[in-house]
Amino acid sequence: MKFERRFDNIKLIISDFDGVFTDGTGIIDEDGRVSKRINYHDVLVIALVFMAGIKVAIITGEEAGAVKYLAGKFPDMKVFQGIKDKLPLVKQLAEENNLKPENILYVGDDVNDFQSLNFVGVKVTVPNSNFMVKSIPDIIITEKRGGEGVFREITDAVLYEKLNARYAGEIK
Amino acid sequence: MKFERRFDNIKLIISDFDGVFTDGTGIIDEDGRVSKRINYHDVLVIALVFMAGIKVAIITGEEAGAVKYLAGKFPDMKVFQGIKDKLPLVKQLAEENNLKPENILYVGDDVNDFQSLNFVGVKVTVPNSNFMVKSIPDIIITEKRGGEGVFREITDAVLYEKLNARYAGEIK
Amino acid sequence: MKFERRFDNIKLIISDFDGVFTDGTGIIDEDGRVSKRINYHDVLVIALVFMAGIKVAIITGEEAGAVKYLAGKFPDMKVFQGIKDKLPLVKQLAEENNLKPENILYVGDDVNDFQSLNFVGVKVTVPNSNFMVKSIPDIIITEKRGGEGVFREITDAVLYEKLNARYAGEIK
Amino acid sequence: MKFERRFDNIKLIISDFDGVFTDGTGIIDEDGRVSKRINYHDVLVIALVFMAGIKVAIITGEEAGAVKYLAGKFPDMKVFQGIKDKLPLVKQLAEENNLKPENILYVGDDVNDFQSLNFVGVKVTVPNSNFMVKSIPDIIITEKRGGEGVFREITDAVLYEKLNARYAGEIK
Repeated sequence: MKFERRFDNIKLIISDFDGVFTDGTGIIDEDGRVSKRINYHDVLVIALVFMAGIKVAIITGEEAGAVKYLAGKFPDMKVFQGIKDKLPLVKQLAEENNLKPENILYVGDDVNDFQSLNFVGVKVTVPNSNFMVKSIPDIIITEKRGGEGVFREITDAVLYEKLNARYAGEIK
Repeated sequence: MKFERRFDNIKLIISDFDGVFTDGTGIIDEDGRVSKRINYHDVLVIALVFMAGIKVAIITGEEAGAVKYLAGKFPDMKVFQGIKDKLPLVKQLAEENNLKPENILYVGDDVNDFQSLNFVGVKVTVPNSNFMVKSIPDIIITEKRGGEGVFREITDAVLYEKLNARYAGEIK
Repeated sequence: MKFERRFDNIKLIISDFDGVFTDGTGIIDEDGRVSKRINYHDVLVIALVFMAGIKVAIITGEEAGAVKYLAGKFPDMKVFQGIKDKLPLVKQLAEENNLKPENILYVGDDVNDFQSLNFVGVKVTVPNSNFMVKSIPDIIITEKRGGEGVFREITDAVLYEKLNARYAGEIK
Repeated sequence: MKFERRFDNIKLIISDFDGVFTDGTGIIDEDGRVSKRINYHDVLVIALVFMAGIKVAIITGEEAGAVKYLAGKFPDMKVFQGIKDKLPLVKQLAEENNLKPENILYVGDDVNDFQSLNFVGVKVTVPNSNFMVKSIPDIIITEKRGGEGVFREITDAVLYEKLNARYAGEIK
């Protein structure tokens, strides 16, 4: 995924969790407790995205300790778990933040992300997402697969100029 | 795996667990407790399969919390664990549901699935399955490997028309 | 790894654990407790190997719950953990079972397996093993990587004729 | 990564943890507790590196039981966790050990390693590291990805002659 001029308008990144922050799998122990695997390339960039003036929200149909873990690390990030119907929440976030669809990037990998992807201005999915999601016009497919740093790939593209300045500022 | 006309007859999908819903591995902790990794692309579709009028059963030679976890999420799904000889159970399910072999799809990856695969009408396995399983005439080999969404690939092919209508219906 | 006539002489398979039964990794939790991931393609075949009249032993430099788990499932299998110097144990197993080096297959992936590999008749390693191990004359390199079913690949080759008869017998 | 003459000067190897000793991921359980996966090819070589007269330190921005686990196994190895600004620590280690930058090899994969990589004489990163890290002049990119034995690949190259002598000595 490469930087594009239209990403300059993005003010809010809304992300699905399973299949984006993870490879779509969950590890289930003998008691039925679920663990999920996230990538620290994604974790490392979240604070920088907020510093760049862009908000981040996670909306997931499941529930996971990994989502709570991220929410704990980044209190500015809005997190919604166990959401069966995601679109109303996407619209509500747009309204609360006074944003138009073209100000929102949504990334998701399955049919329960279909409506939300169609609503926003910049639609992103992963290489191994559902065929219906991939069929959405103008959908951008990331190079990395879920769990390999998809969120980082997106923010590196969206915030290319801002992040570069920041990285350089950190280096000095 | 692509849609075929003969899948229209399928009324029951019976699946092995290890190597189909998982990559065939188990994570063993210091106390010998086993965790297994499943894919939410598979999980997400199970309810839709039942809604499409097709039953799902899992028959596994091992026992796993992950199987119980799925059984808890989908009470309609029949689950049999610790089964050394799978064929009698496959036949019993056929009888109970008044089904002929051509109404049943079976997916498995190892020699303890060999007899059941030979019994049913539609025989499916994964790319990295045992060589004897792969040698079964008419066996269909999925594109995805175990744990990468094999069950989803199968249901996307079997229920292609029904699922598309449903996905579209959800989208409205 | 393909069947060879000289495998007919094998009476004992001695295997390293990490990097053969696993991909060489361990999962460490916050308390420093270690979990390891094994493959049920390997697990499924162990009983069949003993039935075919061939013994199996695991010798590992580390300690793992996964090794104890296998030992619990297959009481006939000898398991030695925390072994810094493996060769004396290999020689002892040969002596106890009245075997010559050509009756033993050893599989391992790192420098602490070097001496044992040089001692036995059939020397096997994995594709991603240490360069010194790979440099051993006559070493056989499996197609699968550690944790992908290496032990199964070996036993499928060594016991090709015996296993085929058994698989067929099971099917009947 | 291949042996080079200039590696003869290396007296200290400083390594990032996430993305080098691991694939950059963490497994989060339902209570938010984190597990990380390390490779025993890396573990096995650490003692040998110290025996070869080269020191090893790990500096990580996160905290992990896996780091403590390594520290427990190798008391000579210095370990610094939760470090937001790594460069001062790198300089301090150089000073304490009376080393010039050309005596230090640093390996890391993300922007918080950028300054430290620029400071040392031998700069190493992994194939899937951040684009800014990869853009550093003279950076060496390993063949293995994080968690596949990157540290072992580095030590096999740096200590090529010393390790070969030792491996041979062990073999006798």
